[in-house]
Amino acid sequence: MTDHERWQELGQQLRVDSIRSSAVTSSGHPTSSMSAADLMAVLLDKYLRYDIDEPENPRNDHLVFSKGHASPLLYSLYKAAGAITDEELLTFRRFGSRLEGHPTPVLPWVDVATGSLGQGLPIAVGIAIAGKELDRLPYRVWTLCGDSETAEGSMWEAFEHAAFLGLENLTAIIDVNRLGQRGETMHGWDLESYTSRAEAFGWHAIAIDGHDVGAIDRAYAEAVETHGRPTVIVAKTLKGKGVSAVEDKGGFHGKALDDPEASIAELGGERDIRVAVRKPETGEEPHRFETGALELPRYELGSEVATRKAYGEALTAVGVADGAVVALDGEVSNSTYAEIFAEAHPERYFEMYIAEQQMVAAAVGLQVRAWKPFASSFACFLTRAYDFVRMAAVSRADIRLCGSHSGVSIGEDGPSQMGLEDLAMMRAVHGSTVLYPCDGNQTARLVAAMADLEGISYLRTTRAATPVIYAPDEEFEVGGSRVVRSSEEDDVAVVAAGITVPEALEAADALAEDGISARVIDCYSVKPIDIETLRAAAEATGGRLVTVEDHWPEGGLGEAVLAAFAGSEEPPQVSVLAVQGMLGSGKPAELLAAAGIDAEHIAEAARELARATAAVRE
Amino acid sequence: MTDHERWQELGQQLRVDSIRSSAVTSSGHPTSSMSAADLMAVLLDKYLRYDIDEPENPRNDHLVFSKGHASPLLYSLYKAAGAITDEELLTFRRFGSRLEGHPTPVLPWVDVATGSLGQGLPIAVGIAIAGKELDRLPYRVWTLCGDSETAEGSMWEAFEHAAFLGLENLTAIIDVNRLGQRGETMHGWDLESYTSRAEAFGWHAIAIDGHDVGAIDRAYAEAVETHGRPTVIVAKTLKGKGVSAVEDKGGFHGKALDDPEASIAELGGERDIRVAVRKPETGEEPHRFETGALELPRYELGSEVATRKAYGEALTAVGVADGAVVALDGEVSNSTYAEIFAEAHPERYFEMYIAEQQMVAAAVGLQVRAWKPFASSFACFLTRAYDFVRMAAVSRADIRLCGSHSGVSIGEDGPSQMGLEDLAMMRAVHGSTVLYPCDGNQTARLVAAMADLEGISYLRTTRAATPVIYAPDEEFEVGGSRVVRSSEEDDVAVVAAGITVPEALEAADALAEDGISARVIDCYSVKPIDIETLRAAAEATGGRLVTVEDHWPEGGLGEAVLAAFAGSEEPPQVSVLAVQGMLGSGKPAELLAAAGIDAEHIAEAARELARATAAVRE
Repeated sequence: MTDHERWQELGQQLRVDSIRSSAVTSSGHPTSSMSAADLMAVLLDKYLRYDIDEPENPRNDHLVFSKGHASPLLYSLYKAAGAITDEELLTFRRFGSRLEGHPTPVLPWVDVATGSLGQGLPIAVGIAIAGKELDRLPYRVWTLCGDSETAEGSMWEAFEHAAFLGLENLTAIIDVNRLGQRGETMHGWDLESYTSRAEAFGWHAIAIDGHDVGAIDRAYAEAVETHGRPTVIVAKTLKGKGVSAVEDKGGFHGKALDDPEASIAELGGERDIRVAVRKPETGEEPHRFETGALELPRYELGSEVATRKAYGEALTAVGVADGAVVALDGEVSNSTYAEIFAEAHPERYFEMYIAEQQMVAAAVGLQVRAWKPFASSFACFLTRAYDFVRMAAVSRADIRLCGSHSGVSIGEDGPSQMGLEDLAMMRAVHGSTVLYPCDGNQTARLVAAMADLEGISYLRTTRAATPVIYAPDEEFEVGGSRVVRSSEEDDVAVVAAGITVPEALEAADALAEDGISARVIDCYSVKPIDIETLRAAAEATGGRLVTVEDHWPEGGLGEAVLAAFAGSEEPPQVSVLAVQGMLGSGKPAELLAAAGIDAEHIAEAARELARATAAVRE
Repeated sequence: MTDHERWQELGQQLRVDSIRSSAVTSSGHPTSSMSAADLMAVLLDKYLRYDIDEPENPRNDHLVFSKGHASPLLYSLYKAAGAITDEELLTFRRFGSRLEGHPTPVLPWVDVATGSLGQGLPIAVGIAIAGKELDRLPYRVWTLCGDSETAEGSMWEAFEHAAFLGLENLTAIIDVNRLGQRGETMHGWDLESYTSRAEAFGWHAIAIDGHDVGAIDRAYAEAVETHGRPTVIVAKTLKGKGVSAVEDKGGFHGKALDDPEASIAELGGERDIRVAVRKPETGEEPHRFETGALELPRYELGSEVATRKAYGEALTAVGVADGAVVALDGEVSNSTYAEIFAEAHPERYFEMYIAEQQMVAAAVGLQVRAWKPFASSFACFLTRAYDFVRMAAVSRADIRLCGSHSGVSIGEDGPSQMGLEDLAMMRAVHGSTVLYPCDGNQTARLVAAMADLEGISYLRTTRAATPVIYAPDEEFEVGGSRVVRSSEEDDVAVVAAGITVPEALEAADALAEDGISARVIDCYSVKPIDIETLRAAAEATGGRLVTVEDHWPEGGLGEAVLAAFAGSEEPPQVSVLAVQGMLGSGKPAELLAAAGIDAEHIAEAARELARATAAVRE
């Protein structure tokens, strides 16, 4: 059998197996798999370098299915490569199976979860950055994209960055099968609409017939030989190729075939071709950066420093101690202070310009290779990347995000720049950690802790300089809190975090003058939250808590505290202070007051609660 | 004075006024304003058609500052046009001023808030769609863009859609001043990198010197004369133009000038040129669509229908009754059932392909002209547009979103397709309404109500068919709830919504067999929430509530219920059931069980709570 015949047969096998697996629960995307079968057959048999038995081999190529719904094709490839058995293939989409509807890293050969379109290519950019700039290994990143998903702007962020960074190790393959979920794409089979856009963005582009295995072979060879820029292969294909009942027909997206047996017969029946996937060459080890001792910045008690500044300084120190730490920023590094890291560790800093989706995607890609990314922007602009953060959790990714300029306390810039929904957004991410420090030394400790956290962690920083209230040697655990002020007979407890901690302390001073003793809790770990300390406060105060946050009332600190008491038989009375109203510009103090979260409002809320307690005691 | 001299003088005035206004609080973006001053001077004096005294005139052109940080320039234009006084100009960024740090519609001439980059152009696409397809009026949409913001993928979604729709009434002006916030852009002054990309996307592109008023004039004339496609003017400019201390220098982004007096002197001093902005031609009225009677779909009690289907059918009916209602969808209209509307009202349906950011932005643009957009996608994919939703609230926009396929109950597709953070995300939007119906008739009523809601409203629908439990004539208010089952002596109350309502009813049946009487509340209005009904339930059951939702535990129904009791002296004991763990594929029932939110888990949680109550009663 010639190579061409073999590839054609393998392509048919991948189609047949895509149909068979989708028949198991009568769901899945066989037609979207069939269009790309020939493209993947040639890749698997000749170009991919991958040690199936050692998915963690740093020299392995990476194969990302940006069109994650073509999972039947991916799993059929795994079967052909001997990674999974035919028996397991036929567990597709069953409860408990590793072969989920869309790929996730529950499978050791899957780097990242896909299935939200427009994410695989930006993530692949991150993996390619790791290969070129960090690991410095010759692995290639192959990415199968759908034509429909090029409508996502995130794809063009990826095109832009890959070309700008000269990622010659990245190849995108666009499966132009013309048909989206509900009809034809904007560009149908106009291959030039894709090649011209890609070329304008600086890529090498090759248009081919995606069912001509010879053309596919030549295109991959050309991609491998292309230097200084990434390559995109724009392949004209037929959705449902090979089965006349569905080939190039609308209405069959995301549907198992009605008559799998007849379809399989039309494709020439089942086959059992096994591919011995070429292993990567041995020898080269991934590059590692030199490390030194961890010397976190130390801020003097009573001085003032912005937590965003402490973030930049601490991250720089953590970067000295841990060579795996890398940083990214979305063109605001002089505001987030990621620029301090960039200056100290230029080889481990990546400027992502104003492209927050690509920034988070790149972070996800970098952690595929065990780098430890910290990505920063204004808290409000991280909302731009929420789908990527959500999917990062499905990817079981370990990434660290920092949102600066949180809350109304930013001052004059106005509401477009105020992060007021970031706590809600980040708390509602599976397994996430949400931290919100109030002073520089605390920030430094938490940044250091984040480097070793699993999952999605988020640090919220503040624009303004705030008083240093903790000594440099104090330790802060994730999941902890700090009772900043308390007495034997507290009447009320104020639960604050970040910018509201100094306000709460000021309120406590005012309350003391009225004879009201207020406990102040710095709840810097919003998730996980320190339930024990909250319970103790409720007990000590007769169940009188005030929460105060520079955030909308929904989903933030107040609700986190309420949720901590969910299920309690005697939950405390909780007064939730949060930002009221859409504010405009102003001085930070004016805005904190207008929002109803400054010391005065805290004291007033505490007084109301304490009156009840006092009444009971008298 | 020749036109050219006049424009040059006006440009200098705009620079001077940008410096003056930024000096008030010593904050703002004068240098980013100065680069675009000549571009805007010519536009204001010769091309813009706008009745300053009648901002609601439907024939007015629209001017969108996509680079919202150039607000000093915008406000200086308003002063030159006589819209605001010089006195008001000098309130820039002060607390209480309409002249906020970034433009918002607090000012009657501002259509939408900008300041999150990459949003103005996609919104302008929406306004241009309104002009071409709905109003059918010859107004033009002019959009001033920054060069930095072209890094946002959303800009390319806008480029794609504007060309695809042939929006010849749209002109984008890119102010290529080379310098972003923290350094040079990717492309510096390489104008061709912009024109080639725009041309590849199907636009007419013109590269000019952005300080040559003659070239600017010719470019606008050419844009007006270009038919069948939008035009982009790519203008090479100098940031801080005209003031040697800052001109084309890094480090001056977002900073007031150090020496405003000297800078103003260098620019030739203050001027007071007044522009009589050309008014639009009178006569033409906006197109209006024919309307009929509202006949909502009616579903028979005991039948089954998916709420997503009811959304599509109800929206179609609402579209008959209200000619201002329009629909958009992100290439999943056969899943969200927006396709029913598309078939019935093709002139009022806009296919946005897989570009959720552009979809929401277009909705915001359409409502600028008082159209009533409903935009739909899978709930999970609306996370893609969170920054646009957040900013829509700052825009005081009235838009309606529908997220289908919420929760683990979608079944086999797996976690990438499960909307599990949408309630948290949408609740944390200022002034939002969050609705989550459980049956077809309820859905229909809520869709009808949404058409007249202000602000951001969100409807969460379910993939699976669910039992119709309400008669077609029942009415449902926003802010209400429904006690679906209750007795004189309820031991516990289950608060459910959407897919968990039938589960709660099943649990109540099981509990009744154990002699436990469970009240079931359908909390379809998650925000605003029906506090009275919740309080009554707490009182009736001795404070024993179970909440159950197909959503992560954070920020959803459970926390909304807890928040409803914030401040209560005796808050109830609330058991919160929500999705536990990152699930894979499976049948809906398998996943509801695995998530811990099916009838069995509800009954178990209720039993635990009721035991306490029962013990007390005995």
